[in-house]
Amino acid sequence: MTLQIFALTGIGEIRPGDDLATLIIDAADGALRDGDVVSVTSKIVSKAEDRYVQAADREQAITDETVRVVASRDVPGGAVRIVENRLGIIAAAAGVDSSSVPVGTVLLLPLDPDASARRIVERIRARLGVAVGVVITDTLGRAWRVGQTDAAIGIAGMDPVLDLRGRFDEYGQEMNVTVTAVADEIASATDLVKGKAAGRPVAVVRGLGDLVDREDPGTGRQSVDREAGRSEQTHPRSARTLLRPREDDMFHTGAAESWSAGYAAALREHGISP
Amino acid sequence: MTLQIFALTGIGEIRPGDDLATLIIDAADGALRDGDVVSVTSKIVSKAEDRYVQAADREQAITDETVRVVASRDVPGGAVRIVENRLGIIAAAAGVDSSSVPVGTVLLLPLDPDASARRIVERIRARLGVAVGVVITDTLGRAWRVGQTDAAIGIAGMDPVLDLRGRFDEYGQEMNVTVTAVADEIASATDLVKGKAAGRPVAVVRGLGDLVDREDPGTGRQSVDREAGRSEQTHPRSARTLLRPREDDMFHTGAAESWSAGYAAALREHGISP
Repeated sequence: MTLQIFALTGIGEIRPGDDLATLIIDAADGALRDGDVVSVTSKIVSKAEDRYVQAADREQAITDETVRVVASRDVPGGAVRIVENRLGIIAAAAGVDSSSVPVGTVLLLPLDPDASARRIVERIRARLGVAVGVVITDTLGRAWRVGQTDAAIGIAGMDPVLDLRGRFDEYGQEMNVTVTAVADEIASATDLVKGKAAGRPVAVVRGLGDLVDREDPGTGRQSVDREAGRSEQTHPRSARTLLRPREDDMFHTGAAESWSAGYAAALREHGISP
Repeated sequence: MTLQIFALTGIGEIRPGDDLATLIIDAADGALRDGDVVSVTSKIVSKAEDRYVQAADREQAITDETVRVVASRDVPGGAVRIVENRLGIIAAAAGVDSSSVPVGTVLLLPLDPDASARRIVERIRARLGVAVGVVITDTLGRAWRVGQTDAAIGIAGMDPVLDLRGRFDEYGQEMNVTVTAVADEIASATDLVKGKAAGRPVAVVRGLGDLVDREDPGTGRQSVDREAGRSEQTHPRSARTLLRPREDDMFHTGAAESWSAGYAAALREHGISP
């Protein structure tokens, strides 16, 4: 089993209104094949969709994109805010991006990254007649671990997860690793060739064709289950599949914030003024 | 920029005492080159190092590997325990593995995965005269996101992170994405070709030679900084670099556990019996 991962070269600065699918097709110059997965950095999707706001509004932009503050901490010169944004993604600064954008502006995440991915899948299918998967990526920090990795925030033409529940290992025991977040693994893999600020915002993964839908990219009804060869996916494709519902998340709120909430609750229940 | 990622075939069941480096060299059959990164699933390292314990002791094994309970929740048939283990890694069940092991046993993580990685780097260098990086991987869940991805728990011959602090983007602004967890991204990338329980526990990444140390794999003193071409690394290589120190981690303890601790603190401070 071999993967090839290559960045497309020659995609220049993206301007509002640019047709990303056409730019990708032109940059690929005939190299796109059936079953490829195209990984697109969300920054260029946002630029094409004119998601700029004035930098004077950066803090306001973060606030506007925030559904819920998950954790925050004062640091020299400001505060780190980990928040849940309107897409349901938990990220620093709500995903508001101030790198590699013109001075004086910041960039919001795409309005609907799944829809952005679907448009690219459909245009590539229409123009080239090939079925590809598209992953829209963003760079995210993690709890517990140092450093950022790229993850999937939009998807089309493929399932974001590979569900191994019910599979058995070579000793006949049911596997305890159950769901592999393949779209996040693809996002991370392609970050290795994209680099940051290196002018390579799109990469292609070849060799994962079994993950790619060969029929309707919107519903993936004909998706083939990678290891078992079964057709079993019937739900619409969405990177929201990768978001843990709050009620299942043991880390839905920061430790300090949770501690303070518990402290306040005890005072309240016992009628003590803070 | 192109990566090739391929799984080695023909590595059979690993037995205690097996020499992994020799098995990898034999399976690669001449294919290993200078600058390759070899990704090795921790399960086979543990098997070679005879880290088996009897399955009757599974819960005790988890407890023994646990330094600190981070969060736990009752689920049907037991409890999910997210803990910090003796390696400092935060993981479900402390990394104790009961998949793809003989019935009646469980498998602990390697005692010192960095040392395991160094032995492989050194044996490959001695036998083949090529400098490779080695990443020992494990499958981890994440806060906030559904599904598991592979991450690096041991490393040698390369830096686990790519530090971009102080770099400037094309608009002359300092980059706000600062540290890329390349070893975790490599672990995730290689999981895409390894599969679970598929008999492909080792994969090779070709195309990241700039990340690989060309001198002493223990200290990496001659590491070349990937994008700037600078030699700047002088610290010993360790996957512990990827672990966020508890005092910097806003999610060091689960939300419910933190809430309860705050509640108890309020009662204590106000002299109220729980």
